[in-house]
Amino acid sequence: MTTESAFINILRGFAKDPAARGLLDDAAVVEIGDSCLIITHDMMAEDVHFKSNANPADVAWKLVASNLSDLAAKGASPIGVLLGFMLGDDDWDRAFAAGLEKVLGHYGVALLGGDTVSNRGDKRALGLTALGIAANRPVPSRAGAQVGDILYVTGTLGDALAGFELIDAGFDEVGPLADAFNRPQARLAEGQKLAPFVHAMMDISDGLLIDAERMATASRLGIEIDLACIPLSPAYVSYRTDSLESRMQAASWGDDYELLFCAPADARLNVDATAVGRVIAGGGLTLRNGDELVKLPPTLGYQHH
Amino acid sequence: MTTESAFINILRGFAKDPAARGLLDDAAVVEIGDSCLIITHDMMAEDVHFKSNANPADVAWKLVASNLSDLAAKGASPIGVLLGFMLGDDDWDRAFAAGLEKVLGHYGVALLGGDTVSNRGDKRALGLTALGIAANRPVPSRAGAQVGDILYVTGTLGDALAGFELIDAGFDEVGPLADAFNRPQARLAEGQKLAPFVHAMMDISDGLLIDAERMATASRLGIEIDLACIPLSPAYVSYRTDSLESRMQAASWGDDYELLFCAPADARLNVDATAVGRVIAGGGLTLRNGDELVKLPPTLGYQHH
Repeated sequence: MTTESAFINILRGFAKDPAARGLLDDAAVVEIGDSCLIITHDMMAEDVHFKSNANPADVAWKLVASNLSDLAAKGASPIGVLLGFMLGDDDWDRAFAAGLEKVLGHYGVALLGGDTVSNRGDKRALGLTALGIAANRPVPSRAGAQVGDILYVTGTLGDALAGFELIDAGFDEVGPLADAFNRPQARLAEGQKLAPFVHAMMDISDGLLIDAERMATASRLGIEIDLACIPLSPAYVSYRTDSLESRMQAASWGDDYELLFCAPADARLNVDATAVGRVIAGGGLTLRNGDELVKLPPTLGYQHH
Repeated sequence: MTTESAFINILRGFAKDPAARGLLDDAAVVEIGDSCLIITHDMMAEDVHFKSNANPADVAWKLVASNLSDLAAKGASPIGVLLGFMLGDDDWDRAFAAGLEKVLGHYGVALLGGDTVSNRGDKRALGLTALGIAANRPVPSRAGAQVGDILYVTGTLGDALAGFELIDAGFDEVGPLADAFNRPQARLAEGQKLAPFVHAMMDISDGLLIDAERMATASRLGIEIDLACIPLSPAYVSYRTDSLESRMQAASWGDDYELLFCAPADARLNVDATAVGRVIAGGGLTLRNGDELVKLPPTLGYQHH
């Protein structure tokens, strides 16, 4: 089995167009006339990204929201999506279509086209392409962080993790934690407001620690994160308690789709966000818990296989 | 199992943006500033569009060419593609990547991004999104044919059918017929030249008869095709003979990816193409063989399930 990183390394050998950003960024950035198009394609697979018994409307929601989150990280306004769909069970497909209509309506995004194939009894794999227009130039990237910058996240972390565990254990699926897992919010408004003054920005799809490390690598600098500063929701704390362990877990789990960004220390934020660390000289990730250095966990976040 | 047409009918209920063209066209047409973006997403599935033992480089070629063919039908210049890929066997994946590099190099198209998932032993389903810029306004569509227009096709028809049969029977895979099936050509140059003066244009992906019927329906007129005029290659004739039956088969088989277009009777063509029929009042498809009316076959072309 080829790993994702090995395959992408092969593709990187010929994906030399600057718009591809070395296949290292959340989305491609294509200059068209006076406009700057942002385009991304993300897939979701049964038994990898969603369970066979998941609500199809939730799958539709997450497929759209996770793609729009990549546009949010570029400060883009979404235009529309194209769907790659595997036809299967009639009820599932209809429920998916109804959920797709709902999530596209929620974000005011058009369905522009796509294609279908029959799934012939295999596990479903769905793809979505999302198009947007950058509201600001230069378009934020993962690179660009500067020593002295403060590292921020929007919202709270760990809720999707807790929601996944609750759903997995058969608990009520309609609470805020389950919602965080099933129906993540793409931070489009925040991304558009932040784009003009961030030095670097990305969405947290695989976990704060692994995504912060990617930002550090792309920026060729180090990032220090203080676990004591990680924003947790009351629901998360009530479910997992507030401990070093629960903070570490909230920081190493994906699916939050919050924005992670670096801004100068004297910048006045125009969105709600929490300072969780800072950009330092050197490289890689350093973890603290208040004044105390903390060893990096063996797994920083979700690694694609 | 939901049929493709039933599912697309549901989607059509909310895909109301004009750019989506009612999900009836080969590609979406998005106005961005002064530019007109053409975007399409087509999938290919193992055992539906390609065999498990197909050459992975051929699969890559066809995935790209079939998407670029949709851009060709819009008279667009391609910009780049995004790949949705199922990771599996290492050798297959590497051969696919090498083929992808080759076909993108052939067309001068950039790989901009995409996503991968592991295929967990399932049959492969691959998706490609292709982006282009329209060279001409208005952008050609399937609608717009006018009574008295001549119907043309580029190239020859049926070669992909013959190639498929030869490959299926275990014959040599490197002949021109096998190439027509494995490595179709997207008619990009022809599409760009034709766009300024055609009344309607599309690519023949599912078969001349079914696609001409779609053009007739979209244009709310009738189309009459003369089977005696259908362009056949020497290789096709040598393999299948030249008979009414072999002409009917060449006209009802997909995968040719030639352009089908209507132009005024007095238009001077600026590309090589063959007149195969004309646009008439009424609706639907009428078939002739010279002076003789011919009954429509039970299946006009490839119907997606």
